[in-house]
Parts: sequence; C-alpha cells; structure tokens
Amino acid sequence: MTTSLQYSDVEQAAARIEGAAHRTPVLTSTTFDARANANVFFKCENVQRMGAFKFRGAYNAIARFTDAQRAAGVLTFSSGNHAQAIALSARLAGIRATIIMPKDAPALKVQATKEYGGEVIFYDRYTENREEIGRRLAEERGMTLIPPYDHPDVICGQGTAAKELFENAGPLDVLLVPLGGGGLLAGSALAASGLAPDCKVIGVEPEAGNDGQQSLRKGEIVHIGVPDTIADGAMVTHIGTHNFEVIRRRVDDIVTVSDAQLVETMKFFAERMKMVVEPTGCLGAAAALHGVTQVAGKRVGVLISGGNVDLSRFAQLVGA
Amino acid sequence: MTTSLQYSDVEQAAARIEGAAHRTPVLTSTTFDARANANVFFKCENVQRMGAFKFRGAYNAIARFTDAQRAAGVLTFSSGNHAQAIALSARLAGIRATIIMPKDAPALKVQATKEYGGEVIFYDRYTENREEIGRRLAEERGMTLIPPYDHPDVICGQGTAAKELFENAGPLDVLLVPLGGGGLLAGSALAASGLAPDCKVIGVEPEAGNDGQQSLRKGEIVHIGVPDTIADGAMVTHIGTHNFEVIRRRVDDIVTVSDAQLVETMKFFAERMKMVVEPTGCLGAAAALHGVTQVAGKRVGVLISGGNVDLSRFAQLVGA
Repeated sequence: MTTSLQYSDVEQAAARIEGAAHRTPVLTSTTFDARANANVFFKCENVQRMGAFKFRGAYNAIARFTDAQRAAGVLTFSSGNHAQAIALSARLAGIRATIIMPKDAPALKVQATKEYGGEVIFYDRYTENREEIGRRLAEERGMTLIPPYDHPDVICGQGTAAKELFENAGPLDVLLVPLGGGGLLAGSALAASGLAPDCKVIGVEPEAGNDGQQSLRKGEIVHIGVPDTIADGAMVTHIGTHNFEVIRRRVDDIVTVSDAQLVETMKFFAERMKMVVEPTGCLGAAAALHGVTQVAGKRVGVLISGGNVDLSRFAQLVGA
Repeated sequence: MTTSLQYSDVEQAAARIEGAAHRTPVLTSTTFDARANANVFFKCENVQRMGAFKFRGAYNAIARFTDAQRAAGVLTFSSGNHAQAIALSARLAGIRATIIMPKDAPALKVQATKEYGGEVIFYDRYTENREEIGRRLAEERGMTLIPPYDHPDVICGQGTAAKELFENAGPLDVLLVPLGGGGLLAGSALAASGLAPDCKVIGVEPEAGNDGQQSLRKGEIVHIGVPDTIADGAMVTHIGTHNFEVIRRRVDDIVTVSDAQLVETMKFFAERMKMVVEPTGCLGAAAALHGVTQVAGKRVGVLISGGNVDLSRFAQLVGA
C-alpha cells in the first residue's frame, strides 16, 4: 500500500521548500561536548519559521496541491507545531486552512496558529478521535487532509532538516532524532540512507510514551494511551503507517529519556547556549547528555525539533 | 592625557582577537521589524564566548601584555561579565587572574568566573570603592589592572563587535548600543567612524541610571548613586574617562528605557527568537521596540551585549 520512499524524494522536497524554509544554523558547544564526551552538532530547528521543523513538511505537502485542492483549502489535526506549520504554509500559498487542535494545546501554539490565519476547531484529546473528526470535516468541506506525520510528503519535507545537517556537519557516526509520530525520524532516516549510509539513526522518545520503541521491537505498530509527559509534541498514541514502513527498515534503535532529563537539557540550552528549546526539542540532546545511548568519542548529530513553549511554562520548568 | 583613539585601533584589536573570539551571528526577525517598523539587524554577543561581548576587550588587553606582566598576572573588578571575560582570557593566555566582584553579583556570573580559574574577592558595592580596592591589590601583588571599561585596549576590543555588524549587515542608519561604563558604546562609535561615518550611534541606558545621558548633555562626566535597575551590567555610577573622551566626540544621543520595557523585550527574544538575553543585553532592542528613539523606515543595528542571567531570575522575569 505504501510506495517505498527513498532519498530522492527528500531531495525533491528540498528543492520545493528552498527559499521558503530557513536553512537553520548548526551549532556546537564545547561544554556539551565535554559532558557528553563526544563531538555534537545541533541542528537548530527551534529557529525555523514558526519555530519548528514542521514547516518543512507542511510547506512541501501544500506545494504539491493541484489547483482544485488549492481552491478548497487544507485541513489538519495537530497538537501544536504542525498546526502552525499548516496555517503559515497555507497563508504563503494563499489558501484556506482549518486546524483541529486539542483543547489543552499550549496557548502559544494556538495563538500563533490563529495569527497565521488558520481556523481553529478544538477537540478533547482524551475522549475524541482527531483522525475521525479530521476525515469527516475534510469530506464535508472538500478540503485536503494533511495529517501531522503519517503522509509521504510530510515525511520527505521533514527529512530536509537532516539532509542539511549532514551537508553542514560532515560525516556523522550517530544521529539522534526526537520521535513523536515519526515524521522527523522517518525523514531523517531517508536522508541518512542517501547521504550517510553508515550513520546510525536513533529515535528518542519520552519514557512515558515509548510506543515507538515497543513498535520497533515487535515489528508492528503498537498503540498506547495518551502519554503523560512534558514533551507535548510527542504525546502521540502510535507511530504513523508510512512512518513505520521507513523506520522499521532504516532506524537502528529507539531509546527513551525521562521528563527530568528533558528539563535538565532545557536548562543547559538556556544557560549555556542561550537558546529556548521546547521539551520535545530536547529529546535527542537529552539522550546524548545523559548517556542513554552510546556516543563517547563519536561525531553526533542532534536534531533540535522546535522552540515553541509558553514562556510561563518555560519559566516554571527551568526556573525551579 | 588620553591619546585619541581611532578606527585603526579597532582594526588592530580585530586582528588580535581573530580566532579566539567567535564571530557572532547577525539575526533578523520579521515580527520585530513589523513592530518597530524598521529593518533591524541584531548582533548576538549573547552567544559570544563566556556569553558576552566583554571577552573581546579582555582578550585584546591581555594579548598586549609584556612577559613581565604575564608573569605577574591580571587583576580586575567587575559586576560580572568582565570578570568572566578576564578569567577566561587569562586562562587562555596561561596567566593568573584575580577578580574583585560585588557580593550581590548574579550567582551564575560568579560561578562561571571561578570555573574559568579566576580567584574571586568580594566587596560591597554600596559601601566600598572597587576602584580603590583594585588599585591597592594590583600594587601589592604587582598585577596589571584591566578595569572593565575605562581602558583603551578594552574599548577597542569591544569595538570589534560593531565592526563585524557593519561588515555583515551592510549600510546602517542607526546603531543602538547598551551603555553601562561606556566600553561597548565608545568602541562602537570608533567602529562607526571608520566604517559607517553617516550612521547615528545612540547609547541606551536604564532609566534609573541615566548618568551617561546627563554626562553627554553637560559635556562632563556626571556621577550618580548605584542605580536600581534589573540591568545589572549597567549598574555603574559613571562613565569612564577614556570612554567619555570618545563618546563626547562621536555619539549622537543617549536615550533611556524602563525596566518594564527591558522585561517585555526579554520576553520577545525568548518567545519569538528563541534566545536568552540578559536584561542589559535588551537595552538597544528595547529602545527600538518601544519607539524611544526614531527608527521608522530605517536600517537599524542593535547590539545584544550578553546572555548571562541566572535561570531562576530569568524565569522570574519572563514567566510572569
């Protein structure tokens, strides 16, 4: 059912988003390197447009719309960053966007989505099924549904972040990637397959939401309840089908970190690198900083997925 | 008594610090531009080594030491960032450093100074005179005193930040510079005199510590009490003599912003640009954001002086 995605699809996505997405900086920190005993290269998607890598996939998907699709507009469901990404990409394309968001999504993400001109419809993530709501609304309105991760164009768009990292940082032994629904991880694995076939690609999940790890071990998609974690971008109950097809074949391992480790990593970024990173964005770095995966003596790429966190929440987490 | 400093002195400093100091990024923000109705270029010295522009001046001064001076070591007094800058520069030069710091300096700055290997001696900024303590200790120990701002080599080192900004951002109509003791402002004015003679150079002080503004208007250095402001890097009682000699001739205006305006600017940086900036580092940007000085329709350079703020303090300020 899934056509097999490959590196050339990421290359095509890169050409499509060029000029629209920022080529974000790759930063290093001697202090981080000393603590992790490794050479670490941070790909800073927290300073991507709308504050997260999600812009890449959303823009790539909408850029492929036909005239009829453009006329009807785009619809999605998202806990936050993909919502903003679709809203901004739709505005840039001059088309309508409807976004289904959980009632308890971070206020900053809801506000930004509205500011980009998206129509926001709320649902309850604990009692309602956003995929059903999305499909129904898309049908009623004739809009094209672009889900937050389970979509080939989204996956390949997300893969452009890792592509840029490989291009800028040179050879890497390990690539650590935050894992929620699997868009960034699957895309990164495709990028590695073309540019760095010897680089180990490792997904990092919050401990409370280790469905990805379970899925990889079991060889099939495992569903869990909504995980209780501060990493709101990784509060998904299962990996996407298109994503798992890639992850199963191309990802070496999936590891987990605790919320406490995420907070410590957020503090490091703020204190030492003067950067605001959202909890989900800290997943990869936390794995390196806390020795969750073997990085000693290696050249390590770390994807920082985003920086969208309510300031009051950020203050609460790093100020303690 | 002061030999007149000029642009060539900044050029020489730039050659001296090359390879040791980071060439920090120049960032832009479409949201900031929309709010300020201007084209703003931020020179991000918050990601300079040790987290502030102060590294430039300290390194430049120590790089000129004779063998005898190197053997005895360096001594300074500083509220924080210059302390770290001297400690780190001394370590890189392999010489001893003694730092006199106020008892109420931010804990993060004290800790970092010690981590860089500096010997820290505390004083009470409300009852003791740090300049006297510094001169006495320097004499007793035979160490060379490099004060935080009132020194030609410090001024010219600091000027390299503005030099890089002019080189990267292209022509600017206005340059907004945080003003404490006047090292960064005097250095920036020298850089402008060589690279952008038509660019207006404007110092920005906290409202509570407007001694610079008073001094410029009166044509002589005005002393005030220790100002009560969150901008701890600008809690100085008077501009330096060498600094004022340059500022008087080459600075177009000095304006002030309130602590509330600094907090709002800190929030903007964190929320929109994912950057941690210390209160003093927000002075220039606050003037642009709040219309304190005329920037509409102009190309504006803003120096972000540093990012060293205790996380608990940062959280308190931006989380409210």
